[in-house]
Amino acid sequence: MLFAWHLPVPPYVRYHADHLEIRLWVQGDDELPQQVMLRCEPDNEEWLLTMQPEKQGSFTCYQADLTLLAGEAVRRYCFKFLWNDRQQWFGPQGFSVVPPAQVEQFAIEIPTQSPEWVADQVFYQIFPDRFAASGQDHTVKNDSYYHHAVQRKVIRKEWDEPLTEENASSTFYGGDLDGIVERLPYLQELGVTALYLNPIFTAPSNHKYDTEDYYQVDPYLGGNDALVRLREATQEFGMRLILDGVFNHTGDTHPWFDRYQQRTGGAFYDPASPHRMRFTFTADGRVLDWKGNATLPKLDFSSQAVVDSVYQADDSILRHWLREPYQIDGWRLDVVHMLGEGGTARGNLHHLAGMYRAVKNENPQAYVFGEHFGDARRWLQAGVEDGAMNYMGFALPVRSFLAGVDVAYQPIQLDAQQCVEWMNGYRAGLSHTQQLAMFNQLDSHDTARFLTLLADKPQRMRMALVWLFTWIGVPCLYYGDEIGLDGGNDPFCRKTFPWDESRWDGDLLALTQQMAALRHQSTALRRGGCMAVHARADTLVFVRQYEDETLLVALQREGKGRCVLPHSPILPAGCWENVVGEGKLVREADYIELTLPTESATVWRWAAV
Amino acid sequence: MLFAWHLPVPPYVRYHADHLEIRLWVQGDDELPQQVMLRCEPDNEEWLLTMQPEKQGSFTCYQADLTLLAGEAVRRYCFKFLWNDRQQWFGPQGFSVVPPAQVEQFAIEIPTQSPEWVADQVFYQIFPDRFAASGQDHTVKNDSYYHHAVQRKVIRKEWDEPLTEENASSTFYGGDLDGIVERLPYLQELGVTALYLNPIFTAPSNHKYDTEDYYQVDPYLGGNDALVRLREATQEFGMRLILDGVFNHTGDTHPWFDRYQQRTGGAFYDPASPHRMRFTFTADGRVLDWKGNATLPKLDFSSQAVVDSVYQADDSILRHWLREPYQIDGWRLDVVHMLGEGGTARGNLHHLAGMYRAVKNENPQAYVFGEHFGDARRWLQAGVEDGAMNYMGFALPVRSFLAGVDVAYQPIQLDAQQCVEWMNGYRAGLSHTQQLAMFNQLDSHDTARFLTLLADKPQRMRMALVWLFTWIGVPCLYYGDEIGLDGGNDPFCRKTFPWDESRWDGDLLALTQQMAALRHQSTALRRGGCMAVHARADTLVFVRQYEDETLLVALQREGKGRCVLPHSPILPAGCWENVVGEGKLVREADYIELTLPTESATVWRWAAV
Repeated sequence: MLFAWHLPVPPYVRYHADHLEIRLWVQGDDELPQQVMLRCEPDNEEWLLTMQPEKQGSFTCYQADLTLLAGEAVRRYCFKFLWNDRQQWFGPQGFSVVPPAQVEQFAIEIPTQSPEWVADQVFYQIFPDRFAASGQDHTVKNDSYYHHAVQRKVIRKEWDEPLTEENASSTFYGGDLDGIVERLPYLQELGVTALYLNPIFTAPSNHKYDTEDYYQVDPYLGGNDALVRLREATQEFGMRLILDGVFNHTGDTHPWFDRYQQRTGGAFYDPASPHRMRFTFTADGRVLDWKGNATLPKLDFSSQAVVDSVYQADDSILRHWLREPYQIDGWRLDVVHMLGEGGTARGNLHHLAGMYRAVKNENPQAYVFGEHFGDARRWLQAGVEDGAMNYMGFALPVRSFLAGVDVAYQPIQLDAQQCVEWMNGYRAGLSHTQQLAMFNQLDSHDTARFLTLLADKPQRMRMALVWLFTWIGVPCLYYGDEIGLDGGNDPFCRKTFPWDESRWDGDLLALTQQMAALRHQSTALRRGGCMAVHARADTLVFVRQYEDETLLVALQREGKGRCVLPHSPILPAGCWENVVGEGKLVREADYIELTLPTESATVWRWAAV
Repeated sequence: MLFAWHLPVPPYVRYHADHLEIRLWVQGDDELPQQVMLRCEPDNEEWLLTMQPEKQGSFTCYQADLTLLAGEAVRRYCFKFLWNDRQQWFGPQGFSVVPPAQVEQFAIEIPTQSPEWVADQVFYQIFPDRFAASGQDHTVKNDSYYHHAVQRKVIRKEWDEPLTEENASSTFYGGDLDGIVERLPYLQELGVTALYLNPIFTAPSNHKYDTEDYYQVDPYLGGNDALVRLREATQEFGMRLILDGVFNHTGDTHPWFDRYQQRTGGAFYDPASPHRMRFTFTADGRVLDWKGNATLPKLDFSSQAVVDSVYQADDSILRHWLREPYQIDGWRLDVVHMLGEGGTARGNLHHLAGMYRAVKNENPQAYVFGEHFGDARRWLQAGVEDGAMNYMGFALPVRSFLAGVDVAYQPIQLDAQQCVEWMNGYRAGLSHTQQLAMFNQLDSHDTARFLTLLADKPQRMRMALVWLFTWIGVPCLYYGDEIGLDGGNDPFCRKTFPWDESRWDGDLLALTQQMAALRHQSTALRRGGCMAVHARADTLVFVRQYEDETLLVALQREGKGRCVLPHSPILPAGCWENVVGEGKLVREADYIELTLPTESATVWRWAAV
């Protein structure tokens, strides 16, 4: 057997001004190849560069330089092993007899448009009506206004009153932006450094995906002034702030559309409206909408007015909120794969490229990430976003492995190897730079809470949290997950945060704090390569590594686990310190041996002896 | 075991005005799933449509409708099998426990921009100086002109004089366009219906990838008038005509560049030249070129002048030759993945989209395909070409399997299963529509001839030809392959065509004629789905199917092969007629059994009993 180790980070990659020094370690009982070549493509064609071998104990280290003086920013490479009579390839998914696909090679972006700060964050997602209430008078009261979409007046409930399926979108609990400001000390103690807020612009529903005014923070949340206060407070706490941009559709009360004729000139009733072209009307006067929701008319990006409003004009919505006094740090873009021309997704990538360019013009360090419940790779590979909500590459495999249900809550059986193949196969399509900026969550306002999905196995929530904080990508907690808040699918995943500490799962909170702190201490967790070293049945073990910092993470789903891991460049000999969890590690001369209790997550940190 | 069959063609897909009827056949000893769902994404999000089962003998046929009233032209779908406690997915690469990647599902383009006629062709690639000479006086003579790039006068050789490595690009044999006209009867008898010519525009070398004038056919090939004659003659023969467009770089004698100061105003010597911006000069005055060939300066697409000249202006090069009197049927685009801005491939997809649009504006039925020695999927998935020279998805796997060498002529060992996985994995990333328009060749002017690569196994050339004409995609012969012309890498793959029939391999020619005729008779070969039914060690068996027409193709590389193939929707019971080759087929009640001689290619056609 032949083994090889490479990660797209130091010490495997050394950065120089005009080239990357690429190193690959190889070991094997088999005859070593006559030649190992670095396969790269600085001009989009294949270059095969002979690598220089150097014996290092039982390993051979191969080295070659990859030029940065030619080519595009995405530096793709893999390795070709050549014998007299055969060959093999080595890429992020291991060995293969044929070359890996172009987009499934090791890849680093130099220079990158991806914001430098993202990988260092611990995010926290807040549904503003439900996280915290400042108690000010501006919040929604019973009958504050008529909610046309559901044909009734809005409802205000007490913070602790239970949610109901009925009137889901018109029931308010009084959370607001100043409430968030008050809870920043809590979030800071938790280890949170960045907030992502569900929509806050004026809209009749509590979720506010039905925008009525893109230039006003909803007055019931505190208005634009409250956002300024939140921005200033987050800056004092050194926290980043991301808003949710909904540009696939507006709400039907938006003046451009104005289904209820609250003003004049809206597109819905008036074919001569100056805003008619902003939407797509069929020959019989029907408007194309979002997934059959007549209250969410789809914006038509074939209209220059829409293009200007959303991204092109100088005070376009995307640009506006990136400027003072708001200076948000980026945008989460709602159902970003769906927006386009003529009521369809036509022209989608073209407009997303325009949106991305507009944001980066305002602030090259702004973070743009899309909502994609499905495969986001087509968009990431097209370079129209820095990252994506990582349902497909993180949330869904983790959910499938630990909870046994898929995106549609249908049963799925997955062993550790299948789970890792899914996750590795997915991220092989992304550059390392993109992998670091993927927005990893266990759940969100659009899914049942992870704890609830676990049903009779709530103890697996600890495994999920350890996984979230140790896997490659930036972790985001959905508010309340850290204290054991539960809830089924929408609306029940949107319960109010119980500020009564007696209702908290203190162990879960402590673990979350510990994991966030560990992440802040560890470059390997924030920036390192990620490689599974054992995946079989219920046991999944992976390594995060950067320079001489190595962390080992072991997840044991059911039963007891035991595995033997030989030393290698990725698992150096030396002392392994247990930092989280109950697993046992025994050091032997040539290997380490792990013993893992059932439903456990254990983390060790390496230190030279 | 559970088995499933689906191809993106009738009878598995029935076309209707507003929907596709999708059918999947399933059989298995295992418990059938409680539910089978059609997974599609008309709005770029996942739809799960319950399929209706119908018992048909030992099979169950599941059916559901896929709407054509919403969504983008690429209709992607796969199948989800659901049991009470688990699930499986079925896509073009078979069963998986997790959903296939977005771009690796079944896919059909409706409506399509791909030209309807392409899949029906048998192409023939001609290197004009070497295929046929009309004997007219316009051809290159000894010392006709000075070839600056190689610092010597051009050489004219007799048709039968051997090629030499020396003076490879400045040696001429006198082939010309009128020579091609004279040989159209030969090509028609061969079964050829479309020509692809290597570059013919004025250029000093014999290969003419160093363009000097994009608006003149080289006078030594007969000039523009000869192209008109060729166009008229091909039309009389009902043949299509494709030219080679070289837009990554010009030659250094192009007036825009003019390294040898043959005129005034060229960019090379004059920083104030109006053409300076068409190329990329470094601070020290060096020009960026193609792969270090100083005589091939790279065009800079950040220059509007280049954009206008190549594709944007009304009489841009791409448009010009699509118009009367030339009316070429499309463009093969040289090193299309490399062109871009500032001496790099930056902006590549943007400019290719512009080029594609320009061509389709002139003639929506024009065929645009790019040269890609490597993975072309990123470009095809971006929709900037109809097809691609299919090195990665056809030529290289076939070469690897039959000749044991890869793109770099290095040794590779591949069994039939690995070969099929490579080919199927690659084409899974393309829509069926694109697969039909892929430009399949065994070799070209840029590779050693396939026969020469086979070295001491020339009899495998017959297998390769059968494979070429029966695999999915449009076949293209490289001139002379059909009569056994040999030759190593450039320049030796560019020998003159030996018109003395005594030098021909008559058996190979007869086989080629037979295969071309078979293809013209068979919708299944031209338009059908393609599925491997057996791939192990040295035996590869696949099916082409469309409606009730089924062809079975068996390739046996070494040793004798024997395999048993159960009946199924893809291998119906009935009579199998041998149409090519020496393999034996025995019909049994539930299966057929094949016996295959060594180094054989056999084709059977199904007929109901």
